[in-house]
Amino acid sequence: MKFIRHGAVGAEKPGLVDAAGRHRDLSAHIDDLSGAALSKASLAKLAAIDPESLPLVAEGTRLGAPVAGTRNFIAVGMNYADHAAETGGTVPPEPLLFSKAPNCIVGPNDDILIPPGATKLDWEVELAIVIGETAWQVEEAGAFDHIAGFVLCNDVSERAFQMEGTGQWLKGKSAPTFGPLGPWLVTPDEITDVQKLAMELDLNGAPRQRGNTATMVFGVRTLVSYVSRFIKLDPGDVITTGTPPGVGMGRKPPEFLKAGDMLRLTVEGLGEQHQKVALY
Amino acid sequence: MKFIRHGAVGAEKPGLVDAAGRHRDLSAHIDDLSGAALSKASLAKLAAIDPESLPLVAEGTRLGAPVAGTRNFIAVGMNYADHAAETGGTVPPEPLLFSKAPNCIVGPNDDILIPPGATKLDWEVELAIVIGETAWQVEEAGAFDHIAGFVLCNDVSERAFQMEGTGQWLKGKSAPTFGPLGPWLVTPDEITDVQKLAMELDLNGAPRQRGNTATMVFGVRTLVSYVSRFIKLDPGDVITTGTPPGVGMGRKPPEFLKAGDMLRLTVEGLGEQHQKVALY
Repeated sequence: MKFIRHGAVGAEKPGLVDAAGRHRDLSAHIDDLSGAALSKASLAKLAAIDPESLPLVAEGTRLGAPVAGTRNFIAVGMNYADHAAETGGTVPPEPLLFSKAPNCIVGPNDDILIPPGATKLDWEVELAIVIGETAWQVEEAGAFDHIAGFVLCNDVSERAFQMEGTGQWLKGKSAPTFGPLGPWLVTPDEITDVQKLAMELDLNGAPRQRGNTATMVFGVRTLVSYVSRFIKLDPGDVITTGTPPGVGMGRKPPEFLKAGDMLRLTVEGLGEQHQKVALY
Repeated sequence: MKFIRHGAVGAEKPGLVDAAGRHRDLSAHIDDLSGAALSKASLAKLAAIDPESLPLVAEGTRLGAPVAGTRNFIAVGMNYADHAAETGGTVPPEPLLFSKAPNCIVGPNDDILIPPGATKLDWEVELAIVIGETAWQVEEAGAFDHIAGFVLCNDVSERAFQMEGTGQWLKGKSAPTFGPLGPWLVTPDEITDVQKLAMELDLNGAPRQRGNTATMVFGVRTLVSYVSRFIKLDPGDVITTGTPPGVGMGRKPPEFLKAGDMLRLTVEGLGEQHQKVALY
């Protein structure tokens, strides 16, 4: 099943995508795609509803991020060997975790806003994991029991804020609009092999990132288990799993985003994002 | 005014401390100490209520953290020159930001739980800032307009998780119970000079940390302004501002917490915490 959240910023309602690709409203069944509504039992119950019984969402309605209530937004650095090389780094011996501010999350097609002082705004197409049930000290074998689904993520990054100043990466990963998620929260049963999904990012119609989750260094099961050794993951928490090669700072010369640029991102099976870059 | 949250874990209610030091319940006036209830206008309205009109909270009722709905829990490293020296570091040229998982927040006197695999559990007495109104691109001069109040924080840290593995500090700063806050959210009008507050931490009755916010490198106004350049701070978000000398890893030989240890912490005007260390 593919779940969505539809409506104006801050007033999104839950919904799903029917077999014909139409958006249907789930407001009568759950308050939001957050907390207990993200459990396996809850999602299975929603998937069992006859979509024809659900109101259609008006065409053209904005999509929000397809998960709400995220408090931990964890990201993984250098998790594709080729990407590590292009940034001048090496593959770490264990997952390299950092955080993004949860209030940087926006809808899949919302504008990306250049914050004041930014000079090196960059893109990162990623597969993200949405937690459905609390995960603390979880073994790899049981990791999928805690996953509500997967979602396309643009791990927007300001490289000067991230790497040139003092302190840790969160500074360059957290400004408002730096976390587009969606369009869909896709349940695991819809994905044949999460470690074999093509990934693409285009800038103004030209290819920039081409990759596949097959070359992820630490896979989905490992990441959920690893993070849960240090942080209790709650329903709605998100782990974004790293980006394949082709980011702006890896190009020669480096290339960064400017107002008016258009991004298109996709991860196989997770839908497509289209973002315009604009000044804050 | 001093605000509290009282009751069982996950079922805390808002309250305040009356002139006689008794706890009074505010449930009839606000749902919780979160979101819009933390604005200047809201807190002023609550402070204007005759405390005698509020129900007394039963003596011995547990205190929770005196703020709810925290999504960004930002911390500042190496923000006291003497502490930087004891850890082998130097004072950074600008604030060194890292994050703690918001779901590590617990009440001021709850047990600190040693997570599986932990070997270097350490303490850090700190002054923390609670955001009352959204702060984004805020100037230092206006920083106090965005502050609901101040709170005592133990920035509990596992040094091996934090510094010895791959990745960023959040790994060693985020396990459940690593963020005791409270007992009180103290509004700025109750604090004569936030940059002149004595700080103490005792381990099993023996002094370990003795400091004063006067030796903070980057003060409260600077920190709110600085963080707001990178992260939009929402009501309920917390910035904990660093620790003075005397942490366990700075001792010769290093000293770390073990089950049964007792901690006492205080920051002048912000009350006292008492925590027992226990196995998870």
